[in-house]
Amino acid sequence: MSTTGKVIRCRAAILWKPGASFSIEEIEVAPPKAKEVRIKILATGLCGSEMRRLNKNLNCIYPIILGHEGAGIVESVGEGVSTVNTGDKVIALFLLQCGECASCLNPEDNICKFKQSNTNLMSDGTSRFTCKGKPVYHFANTSTFSEYTVINEISVAKTDAAAPLEKVCLVGCGFSTGYGAAINTVTPGSTCAVFGLGGVGMSVIMGCKAAGAARIIAVDINKDKFEKAKEVGATECINPQDNEKPIEEVLFDMTGDGVDFCFEVIGNPATVAAALASCCESHGVCVIIGVTTHVQLNIHGHLFFSGHSLKGSVFGGWKSRENVSKLVADYMAKKINLDPLITHTLNFDKINEAVELMKAGKCIRCVLLL
Amino acid sequence: MSTTGKVIRCRAAILWKPGASFSIEEIEVAPPKAKEVRIKILATGLCGSEMRRLNKNLNCIYPIILGHEGAGIVESVGEGVSTVNTGDKVIALFLLQCGECASCLNPEDNICKFKQSNTNLMSDGTSRFTCKGKPVYHFANTSTFSEYTVINEISVAKTDAAAPLEKVCLVGCGFSTGYGAAINTVTPGSTCAVFGLGGVGMSVIMGCKAAGAARIIAVDINKDKFEKAKEVGATECINPQDNEKPIEEVLFDMTGDGVDFCFEVIGNPATVAAALASCCESHGVCVIIGVTTHVQLNIHGHLFFSGHSLKGSVFGGWKSRENVSKLVADYMAKKINLDPLITHTLNFDKINEAVELMKAGKCIRCVLLL
Repeated sequence: MSTTGKVIRCRAAILWKPGASFSIEEIEVAPPKAKEVRIKILATGLCGSEMRRLNKNLNCIYPIILGHEGAGIVESVGEGVSTVNTGDKVIALFLLQCGECASCLNPEDNICKFKQSNTNLMSDGTSRFTCKGKPVYHFANTSTFSEYTVINEISVAKTDAAAPLEKVCLVGCGFSTGYGAAINTVTPGSTCAVFGLGGVGMSVIMGCKAAGAARIIAVDINKDKFEKAKEVGATECINPQDNEKPIEEVLFDMTGDGVDFCFEVIGNPATVAAALASCCESHGVCVIIGVTTHVQLNIHGHLFFSGHSLKGSVFGGWKSRENVSKLVADYMAKKINLDPLITHTLNFDKINEAVELMKAGKCIRCVLLL
Repeated sequence: MSTTGKVIRCRAAILWKPGASFSIEEIEVAPPKAKEVRIKILATGLCGSEMRRLNKNLNCIYPIILGHEGAGIVESVGEGVSTVNTGDKVIALFLLQCGECASCLNPEDNICKFKQSNTNLMSDGTSRFTCKGKPVYHFANTSTFSEYTVINEISVAKTDAAAPLEKVCLVGCGFSTGYGAAINTVTPGSTCAVFGLGGVGMSVIMGCKAAGAARIIAVDINKDKFEKAKEVGATECINPQDNEKPIEEVLFDMTGDGVDFCFEVIGNPATVAAALASCCESHGVCVIIGVTTHVQLNIHGHLFFSGHSLKGSVFGGWKSRENVSKLVADYMAKKINLDPLITHTLNFDKINEAVELMKAGKCIRCVLLL
């Protein structure tokens, strides 16, 4: 029996308030309105952005359905949707691509200007989710911690019909963010450092390797990450806690002049400052990937008088819709490999176990199957 | 009678201590040692870097001979000097170019790695200046506030023999720093803003214009600078004090999406933060030209999650020796025009009057004739 046009009852992981655990609840998902798509989510990653929101209210409205690294199958489409159809395999995108704004039309840009007054609601200012008769809020244009979600058409990328969704869901955020920041920046033969070895940091290493970096120095205070870092391309690994000197001095000792490119994948003001200071004079570039939206950075000005650059990178610099489809095609063609990033795969019911694994630093990426 | 190999007695403007005025004194200038050049300075600009050192000790040893935007004629050369000869017209360079280090060999770099343990002394750890029997210290590889100075061969750029030194001395710092930062960065058709309309800021405007910028918005709290800013290429001028809104909001109102390139030519942490916030999302670049060597920058991290870049620029990104000669040739060929930058020309004796003109915001550049 077709569900098109009908409210779907399904399960979702709701976060009722910051500080709580996820709670699997039965919810109602309204049909997609114009230019919206309802997706049956089959796999979703758990990313650092969710971890931060578990404990701290970062511009969210609660109760909320988090999750922004998900893949699934289009269940139904709203009026006027022309680029995806029921049955298509798709990846949900936290970064929109309307294709029409100044940013979408500029080859150098990737931050679509299609704005919603509130990203916890759909464009019409309402939610498609209810639980126990009350609205539940959306997250990051995606809300993939639900068996069904409704998102904007311009927030959906079609994938190859044969793509394994439990792998390629990572292209929706972590992999693309890290890999793109590196491959769209690094020059062949260069020396790179990567601060922070989560799923995004590992993807940065992959991107540095693919770009032809000569040295890729992985930095983390959790030594358990080093084996994986080497597996995906790191040439050296350092634990700052093993050194008395500050990490920037350690990197200068190792390289002579500092690194050409340094990637900060933590979002901590102290590591941003250290990462910038680790770069060589003149052409050294520090790319901030870690989410610094809620912190104040404190950086000594002398670094800029040495010609350093500090560069923000969002979603790896990729225009979302077009490049996510291409990256999935690259995975299918074995040009990129997502598999080493996925250390755990759990049933959706076990979402709170996945949280514990992340907290303990025991996993790179945990994919939840719905 | 040849002066080669002999000590020269001449006049110099000495700064005995921070907070003092310049004092014209008779000094002795030793002959150049190996790989050094003694230059008869004929013209020198007074730059903001000197202004800062008049009041505050910024890593200087006193008494000191300041001045780093000077031009003159080679009086004699030390042993092993092969690239300039007695009688050559030259410009003194605060930025070295040894031609052999990793930075000089890298086309993207311009900060030569030839290091002196103390930039207030020559490479052998001694000074070439004495006054009243005591050593006087060097400044920025140049010390052009003296009728004669001794500098490293790799700190000298030859100019066209017909070049008017009282104009092209500005190529030694202010003009090249501003013009280069713009022309080596700005893309045709872009919208630019320039914070700070001194000699360097005006040169940034010239560089933006030469690079084909569509809009060049000049920003200063001194309205007296606006006429000159328009003369050299500004399309609009704003005084932040005329607006209740912060300057970044004013620029967003004017441009819709922020500026593509913003140049901070003040060196103030608050204006650096405002300049970065004035840039558009994704590709917006803020170039710091103002000297921030002694300040801590405080920048909100959310700007980097919008893809902004903050880029340091030293000497306009030019490799010094080769490009200063080329920029002088461009001036001789009327491709660039330095004349609008020089609002005052005074005799060297009047150096303290030049300081007063700069303090009062009454001049763009004052050139002193020796």
